[in-house]
Amino acid sequence: MSHAAAGAGQGLPIADIVARLGGTLHGDPRLRVSRLAPLERAQAGEVSFLARREQSRLLESSRASCVIVPEDVEPDARFAAVIQARDPYLYYARLSQWLQALAAPAPAPGRHATACVHDSAQVAPDACIDACAVIERDAVIGARAYVGAGCFVGAGSRIGADTRLLARSVVMHDCVIGERCTLHPGAVVGADGFGWARDEQGAGVRIAQTGRVIVGDDVDIGANTTVDRGALDDTRIADGVKIDNLVQVAHNVQIGRHTALAGCVGIAGSARIGAYCFIGGGVGIAGHLEIADHTVIGGMSLVSRSVRQPGHYTGAFPLDRHENWSANAAALRHLAELRNRIRQLESRLESHESQKTPVQEKP
Amino acid sequence: MSHAAAGAGQGLPIADIVARLGGTLHGDPRLRVSRLAPLERAQAGEVSFLARREQSRLLESSRASCVIVPEDVEPDARFAAVIQARDPYLYYARLSQWLQALAAPAPAPGRHATACVHDSAQVAPDACIDACAVIERDAVIGARAYVGAGCFVGAGSRIGADTRLLARSVVMHDCVIGERCTLHPGAVVGADGFGWARDEQGAGVRIAQTGRVIVGDDVDIGANTTVDRGALDDTRIADGVKIDNLVQVAHNVQIGRHTALAGCVGIAGSARIGAYCFIGGGVGIAGHLEIADHTVIGGMSLVSRSVRQPGHYTGAFPLDRHENWSANAAALRHLAELRNRIRQLESRLESHESQKTPVQEKP
Amino acid sequence: MSHAAAGAGQGLPIADIVARLGGTLHGDPRLRVSRLAPLERAQAGEVSFLARREQSRLLESSRASCVIVPEDVEPDARFAAVIQARDPYLYYARLSQWLQALAAPAPAPGRHATACVHDSAQVAPDACIDACAVIERDAVIGARAYVGAGCFVGAGSRIGADTRLLARSVVMHDCVIGERCTLHPGAVVGADGFGWARDEQGAGVRIAQTGRVIVGDDVDIGANTTVDRGALDDTRIADGVKIDNLVQVAHNVQIGRHTALAGCVGIAGSARIGAYCFIGGGVGIAGHLEIADHTVIGGMSLVSRSVRQPGHYTGAFPLDRHENWSANAAALRHLAELRNRIRQLESRLESHESQKTPVQEKP
Repeated sequence: MSHAAAGAGQGLPIADIVARLGGTLHGDPRLRVSRLAPLERAQAGEVSFLARREQSRLLESSRASCVIVPEDVEPDARFAAVIQARDPYLYYARLSQWLQALAAPAPAPGRHATACVHDSAQVAPDACIDACAVIERDAVIGARAYVGAGCFVGAGSRIGADTRLLARSVVMHDCVIGERCTLHPGAVVGADGFGWARDEQGAGVRIAQTGRVIVGDDVDIGANTTVDRGALDDTRIADGVKIDNLVQVAHNVQIGRHTALAGCVGIAGSARIGAYCFIGGGVGIAGHLEIADHTVIGGMSLVSRSVRQPGHYTGAFPLDRHENWSANAAALRHLAELRNRIRQLESRLESHESQKTPVQEKP
Repeated sequence: MSHAAAGAGQGLPIADIVARLGGTLHGDPRLRVSRLAPLERAQAGEVSFLARREQSRLLESSRASCVIVPEDVEPDARFAAVIQARDPYLYYARLSQWLQALAAPAPAPGRHATACVHDSAQVAPDACIDACAVIERDAVIGARAYVGAGCFVGAGSRIGADTRLLARSVVMHDCVIGERCTLHPGAVVGADGFGWARDEQGAGVRIAQTGRVIVGDDVDIGANTTVDRGALDDTRIADGVKIDNLVQVAHNVQIGRHTALAGCVGIAGSARIGAYCFIGGGVGIAGHLEIADHTVIGGMSLVSRSVRQPGHYTGAFPLDRHENWSANAAALRHLAELRNRIRQLESRLESHESQKTPVQEKP
Repeated sequence: MSHAAAGAGQGLPIADIVARLGGTLHGDPRLRVSRLAPLERAQAGEVSFLARREQSRLLESSRASCVIVPEDVEPDARFAAVIQARDPYLYYARLSQWLQALAAPAPAPGRHATACVHDSAQVAPDACIDACAVIERDAVIGARAYVGAGCFVGAGSRIGADTRLLARSVVMHDCVIGERCTLHPGAVVGADGFGWARDEQGAGVRIAQTGRVIVGDDVDIGANTTVDRGALDDTRIADGVKIDNLVQVAHNVQIGRHTALAGCVGIAGSARIGAYCFIGGGVGIAGHLEIADHTVIGGMSLVSRSVRQPGHYTGAFPLDRHENWSANAAALRHLAELRNRIRQLESRLESHESQKTPVQEKP
């Protein structure tokens, strides 16, 4: 499906940027910028940013036309324009979205000839359904939503306004995706949870997974990430949650507002993650536990008990040369015993000292 | 592809349930139930279950019409019906499948107009091939099998009776999938194993992967999970194996009957996992090793040697506040040295004690 | 899409093999072989290999017609033909590709009727575009390239000659894939990186990801693996890199030539991995660090700082029986304190020894 012609041709006037995104402008308000670039390789016509004052030396050799700097950095007359902003990184984020929207406008409304849309599905007239997408009965596709090439929306699912399902992403039946979400390519929302009971002979008997996945607004779900539907209750992802690629969210998990999960995280069933958390890459979270709001978990840690106090938690074996690691890992298998031997040494030395040197004891 | 109209409308009489699934009924056999719900939020017309006697207080406030309880829990007359069962969780599993089958019957047989089925493929007349599915030459699709939207079945592969390939799942060429299996969305069975040799300059030379994947009956393969084909021999998944999402099973792996793998597990090439094992989430299993039947591996452990004795094994760094972890991790890099220093302390103290206090030695 | 008829029917004469792949032939040069098999189960007409002299006993019971052996293994007259080669495993790799090419020739050029190819896309006349593949505007598909069933190639992306995109793999817009690459089923190249800033209220603001993914020649990208596009700069995968399944490569990562990543590896943003490295399964690599050429990282290790010296590095908790692990893990949480207690013991014993036994000190 073709996009409309790119619109950032002439670039965005700096005056317009400051009018919308704020900050203090020093320099020519009529200057136009069409692209963002890192300070090191920005060229004329490009805008760049300095995240923190400490990196100021990066400004010296930059050829950007405009730079966004922190408020405590003096504007440098070498640049055609300087914008002082409270948080240049956030400013950059907002500006990047704006420039991208100009350069690559939303796909044109309509339905590709090869899309398969069930007659009973309700598709907003300004939504875009791309090639080989499949939308099943009673599904609802909101205003300006985009269902990309080869995507699947199961029966009864609802996709909110302005939400984008990118290539080959899947929303199984009866799920709810909020507004302004993005499902990145290959993401799967609403697959069955991993639920089964062992029978008398030890064979697994599948438990029907009849809950749903409820996703709030402004949620990102990364490429090939999986979010399972609940067993009886629903799996719930609150507003603003950001999930990176190859993350597994099991059935009945709840994730609080604006929490972020980095790549390769695995969350077991019924865990409840608070709001504004940051879960580092490769972290594992055991089932049926709680993590407090504003908790940070370091990469590749295993969370095996509830974390009730916010803070920064870690548990990962330190990397070392293989032979050092090997010796330390071998010793680690005897650590509890070593601890006992230390206790014994202390007590032996204690008794030795008390017997031998009573007059020399400290007061 | 549309499903037949839902059939659980009037609900299932309790008498029928007990006739088929067993248990001792107390109460009205004509009572009908149409849905399962957790005790806490079950309403009239719904059935719930109590897994263990220890949770009995959950019964007190439940409004379920029928509850399934362990045999050692007395039937409570507050409920219209009580079923005493040996294993209520297993009872729930079986009932959940039954109710789901009534509510969402199997897809109607047939072939969606957009499906691409090679002329030489053999598709059972009562199988269902959904939109944009692709089935290549000489593939065989068994009775009542379901090949979901956008699925791919490669040349010469065989899909057993009653097996379901859900949206976008892939079975590459010449693989065999048994009966009553489910491939969840995005699963990939039969991709090439990761096999290559280094040439004289250190560049990788790909090794053709000519083995197959052979999957038994009643196997579940989770969303976006990958099971690679063998290099020369086959990768083999035995009957009843349950594999969660985002699991990697490398070439030539063998997994025994009724073993379960939780999410994000990675199994390297040629490992042999026994029967009735439970492999926790995020576990890594090195190549060319064996794990005994009935072994349990705790979440995020690395299995780097064979496990020949059944039991419960674990290896994961305990989570801690970051600053504590940091201090302990730093010390861990010197653990072998600390062990030596403990030995030296013991020997010094030993010699000290023996020299100084011979008469006080214990007999 | 059908393949041409298989061509290995009569098998390959050994003389041809030695002429192309080298080695010293002992035996009948007219012997033909059509298949590779492991020594243990090879039959007449099959060729097998012995990787190392130490495994020579495997030769004794093998029924292969031809065996490839190291140069220091004497040819055994029991076999119709023996090829002595410097590196039999590498020889096997090369021969396996050749035999596979004979048995399953490249798909016939052409475009499946259900493929959706934008008018502006440039597709080489001898490329093959399979069922339900989608190729967007201005994409370029090179000579003899294969775009498999259900694949997606975004606008402006370039797929090099002889490269294969297997079922359901995805290349998002404006990416470059070199020659002779394979994207295995479900792989996603060019999804947006995980970039966002926190706003004043702590909500995430998405950062447009405008960089590309640039993949060199002879690269393998595993099933359901994800390689994200850069934020401003590009993500770069150099020639010959081999990536296994379910690997996450974040935005702006650079991976050097002929490096291999085993399954389930996760690499955070802007990390730079050198050439000829081997990264074990499940390894996590933190962002913004460097790993030297020729580095080996053991499975499931976390690389949290740069590795500047080549070598073999590891960091993984040793597996143990759960109760042992539990005791050792508990002690590990006090390791820094134990280290202090050892220091105190040493100093107490030191002072004790020096006070009590001055005359016995070693010189």
